[in-house]
Amino acid sequence: MTPYTPPLADLRFVMENLLDLDRLCELGAFEGLDASLIATVCEEAGKFAAGVLAPLNQAADREGVHWSPDGVKSAQGFAQAYKQFVEAGWNNVAVPTELGGQGLPCIAASAISEMFMSANKAFAMCPGLTLGAIEALTACASEVLQTRYLPAMVSGRWSGTMNLTEPQAGSDVGAIRCRATPDGKGAYKLVGQKIFISWGDQDLTENILHLVLARLPDAPAGVKGISLFLVPKYLVNEDGSLGPRNDVRCVSVEHKMGIHASPTCMMAYGDEGGAYGVLVGEPNRGLEAMFVMMNMARLTVGIEAVGLSERSYQQAVAYARQRHQGNDLQGNRNVPIIRHPDVRRMLMRMRAQTEAMRAVALVIAQAQDFSEHHPSKDVRENQQAFLELMTPVFKGWATETSLEVTSLAVQVHGGMGFVEETGVSQHYRDARIGTIYEGTTAIQANDLIVRKLMRDESGQFELLINKMRKVAVELGGDDVLGSRLSKAVADLEKSARHIRQLFASDPEQVLAVAVPFLMLLGKVAGGWQWGRMLIAARRHALETEDSAFMQAKLLTGEFYAEHILVEVHGLASTVLITRCPSLAVNEASF
Amino acid sequence: MTPYTPPLADLRFVMENLLDLDRLCELGAFEGLDASLIATVCEEAGKFAAGVLAPLNQAADREGVHWSPDGVKSAQGFAQAYKQFVEAGWNNVAVPTELGGQGLPCIAASAISEMFMSANKAFAMCPGLTLGAIEALTACASEVLQTRYLPAMVSGRWSGTMNLTEPQAGSDVGAIRCRATPDGKGAYKLVGQKIFISWGDQDLTENILHLVLARLPDAPAGVKGISLFLVPKYLVNEDGSLGPRNDVRCVSVEHKMGIHASPTCMMAYGDEGGAYGVLVGEPNRGLEAMFVMMNMARLTVGIEAVGLSERSYQQAVAYARQRHQGNDLQGNRNVPIIRHPDVRRMLMRMRAQTEAMRAVALVIAQAQDFSEHHPSKDVRENQQAFLELMTPVFKGWATETSLEVTSLAVQVHGGMGFVEETGVSQHYRDARIGTIYEGTTAIQANDLIVRKLMRDESGQFELLINKMRKVAVELGGDDVLGSRLSKAVADLEKSARHIRQLFASDPEQVLAVAVPFLMLLGKVAGGWQWGRMLIAARRHALETEDSAFMQAKLLTGEFYAEHILVEVHGLASTVLITRCPSLAVNEASF
Repeated sequence: MTPYTPPLADLRFVMENLLDLDRLCELGAFEGLDASLIATVCEEAGKFAAGVLAPLNQAADREGVHWSPDGVKSAQGFAQAYKQFVEAGWNNVAVPTELGGQGLPCIAASAISEMFMSANKAFAMCPGLTLGAIEALTACASEVLQTRYLPAMVSGRWSGTMNLTEPQAGSDVGAIRCRATPDGKGAYKLVGQKIFISWGDQDLTENILHLVLARLPDAPAGVKGISLFLVPKYLVNEDGSLGPRNDVRCVSVEHKMGIHASPTCMMAYGDEGGAYGVLVGEPNRGLEAMFVMMNMARLTVGIEAVGLSERSYQQAVAYARQRHQGNDLQGNRNVPIIRHPDVRRMLMRMRAQTEAMRAVALVIAQAQDFSEHHPSKDVRENQQAFLELMTPVFKGWATETSLEVTSLAVQVHGGMGFVEETGVSQHYRDARIGTIYEGTTAIQANDLIVRKLMRDESGQFELLINKMRKVAVELGGDDVLGSRLSKAVADLEKSARHIRQLFASDPEQVLAVAVPFLMLLGKVAGGWQWGRMLIAARRHALETEDSAFMQAKLLTGEFYAEHILVEVHGLASTVLITRCPSLAVNEASF
Repeated sequence: MTPYTPPLADLRFVMENLLDLDRLCELGAFEGLDASLIATVCEEAGKFAAGVLAPLNQAADREGVHWSPDGVKSAQGFAQAYKQFVEAGWNNVAVPTELGGQGLPCIAASAISEMFMSANKAFAMCPGLTLGAIEALTACASEVLQTRYLPAMVSGRWSGTMNLTEPQAGSDVGAIRCRATPDGKGAYKLVGQKIFISWGDQDLTENILHLVLARLPDAPAGVKGISLFLVPKYLVNEDGSLGPRNDVRCVSVEHKMGIHASPTCMMAYGDEGGAYGVLVGEPNRGLEAMFVMMNMARLTVGIEAVGLSERSYQQAVAYARQRHQGNDLQGNRNVPIIRHPDVRRMLMRMRAQTEAMRAVALVIAQAQDFSEHHPSKDVRENQQAFLELMTPVFKGWATETSLEVTSLAVQVHGGMGFVEETGVSQHYRDARIGTIYEGTTAIQANDLIVRKLMRDESGQFELLINKMRKVAVELGGDDVLGSRLSKAVADLEKSARHIRQLFASDPEQVLAVAVPFLMLLGKVAGGWQWGRMLIAARRHALETEDSAFMQAKLLTGEFYAEHILVEVHGLASTVLITRCPSLAVNEASF
């Protein structure tokens, strides 16, 4: 595998031109922070990603994880890398300082997370899940619980996991059967099986805190009868030291297409009578807590997609420079394949979409920062609404797009892409889970329409359309991107109107085109950010700061307009269907 | 893995409604043949595919192949299956009877090949390559060579391989370095290395005949200095018995993303002084012979894509019926996921495109039959021109589409699609090579434009447009597919005109959008065949033969119009760009 180069210039370009760093750094929570400090932290994280994590990636994919009845042993080098990772504090970049974290904004954490995901997705998932658990406990657990369990997670000594799925309960969380019965001493005994638990067991941390969805004995059926429990791998004594092993075990790991070095565990709770667990938050309100974790996880999975896209783009470029094959049209013989028009097309599709996804990711991360820390309640609510609207769009669109981008990286490699030697196949395989876990693309699309578009009391979608249109207007109709974006926004608006009108009378039809609508919105959102990048790049090109860099931005933005944005019209045509033939097909006729 | 069900009804529907079986069976070469006999043969092949080949597929993927210095051992069960395969004559379905084959038309062979590819692609590749070698020898080898080498290949006792690629010569065949020097006794000594040789060694057949591209000592540089040689693994005595081992060896096999049970060999020729080889055809004319093989291989790879798409569709449907998850909008609880609108959308995308590809495959196969056997020279030439035009389109479009279709099959499975247990991941991995080998999609697009569209002396493209338009007119503008097809054909025509006008002045720009143009043409070709299927299904629906079957065809065709054909307008917009920004990007700025 070629070395990984942190895309620091691209990250910085987005941060400095699409975000409002000044306003962000004025917030009380980020006192003393400035753009240059963020850039420095990103640079250091990039070094860690490139120097420590990336070199382990391919070997770990080959090695996978080792299961035994005693637990899971992770791939060679992971334990040492994890130690360095937490020593450097990379595990708690955005955790508030009062909890022991670095207290940096989400925009920095997102940028850093992208680099870790590029370097070694399987590894980066483990601390990523811990962050989700920290978030959930912070939002929902009592102070007593927080005091007892948070510090060791924040410091990285313990990890956290997310236990939702059971064999019969995947997308349908309401079907969960895992049971929790009071133990008479204020805690609970959990019995049940959980599957697909990422990093459900490992040898990187001293303890693992499983956040487990389960039902109390008197719980109502469905999603309203689910509670959240914290189930430690080792019981934790009053003084914080570790007690005996809890009745929870990883009974097997899955043999998967990708992320081989991330153990996907089947967890057995209570095989010896019941796993000790404590209730987190209110009884029967577990789903809310889990949603805190889930929303964060969705952003993280979107960022994974950006990371894998970037990584595979870099490998494809490196290969395309180094591989000589065929003659060019000017008659030069045996040229590097980067000179062939179709190789350039593929590289540009990869890059234009990767940069679009990265920009959207950071814009969302900024909304998260403002939603948490802005002094004005109105701003906080408005930013929160934007964040909620865009989370499923970003997760769905970015992960789907990463399948194409990583596939193109394979294609650029030709036969060498299909053999495992180059390592580019790994990104393609690793990316494939992105559209599935933390809610499939259909679940994201459902969320987007049912919970966001149809309940958009603050008119967030219209605000979004207005923002997009403003950019198109600023670019102007004579501009390639301006003209394409303007048409695309019109199609997006029309599609949304159609969906809103149809939903009450024919929700089935709406859900039949929900994914095309999500993809439409994602592609237009990418075009919107490209519009902003183009405007910024033009301004800088005049200042002739780094003209080659800015020139490439301009061309990539135009490419996005002419190769990607044009796809939205087909999607809109599909969304505007009155009744999709797929709904009429007899079930037996499939 | 779920059992494989041969799609006999769908195959028959295409054959009986889109092909001209009557005219075909009147041809001298197919005397005594009729539709019902073809159907019977397909049925038997389907039984073999489902009963013998499919059950080996998943285990063979896990096992892979075993390399040792003595050679390659194939996966368990393959040797026995191969024996049964040739005993039943499945290895030479379309080989003329005078050569010892079954003498069936290509349409039958294509249908049968699809089923074998569905059942076990890795296995089916081996006899598929032998067929290519038979074709090349038949077309180019002297009678002496044919007499000596063909019968054992036709009978399946020996296999054939195709040795083009060298480390520095992939897409650029002209860069081949492998050398052949006369041995003074009328034969040659070959020295060189070949890579990516599918089934380059195995334990299924007594001997292997390698068709190898190499250079004579006095050969001109580039593609005009390449000759074709036949290099047997074991030398063949005058009486046909096997002599000593030849100086050719498989020195390693690749570790690949998919088709694990198909050995991808690095072959060393002449490590001990020179491998014995005989010249096939004229010196320096090897490429022509190889193109015979290559064109056939391209159709075969397209058919592989159909087979994997069909297989993954079947698995997705089976899973979607059996997996219960969530409630439907009518309030039914825990329904099979096939009732969820987005699952239906995915299944229909898979199916609509798979059926389109199958129809195009068989229409092309029929052109091959007529081009070889029709008494009229005009008809033969016309059909040959159609075959040549459509071969790169079909190969490129079908393989690219199979990436989407097999990916959707994974998606329908949710988390179970990412674990290897269900076997659906295998199709996704196996399909990934399709867009690469036997010429990448870019190479196909290049061929389509440079050698077909720009040298279309017989006006074959206009004939194609006319045929497509006729179908759109017959469907009518009020018909969903009729209206969509009509618009799509208009966009196709406009795009082709643009390309033809631009090519002389800016070939680079044309090649920058060659793949989008190929995909456009492929999708429209699929719509064209769907139009014909719809017309037929409507006719039959009136006759109420099998109304559920015909009803499903109608809905699937409409779905193709509203979800797939709408995509061509975005592609056309891209093709119509005057100058693609990707060409202007500074090489250092990627």
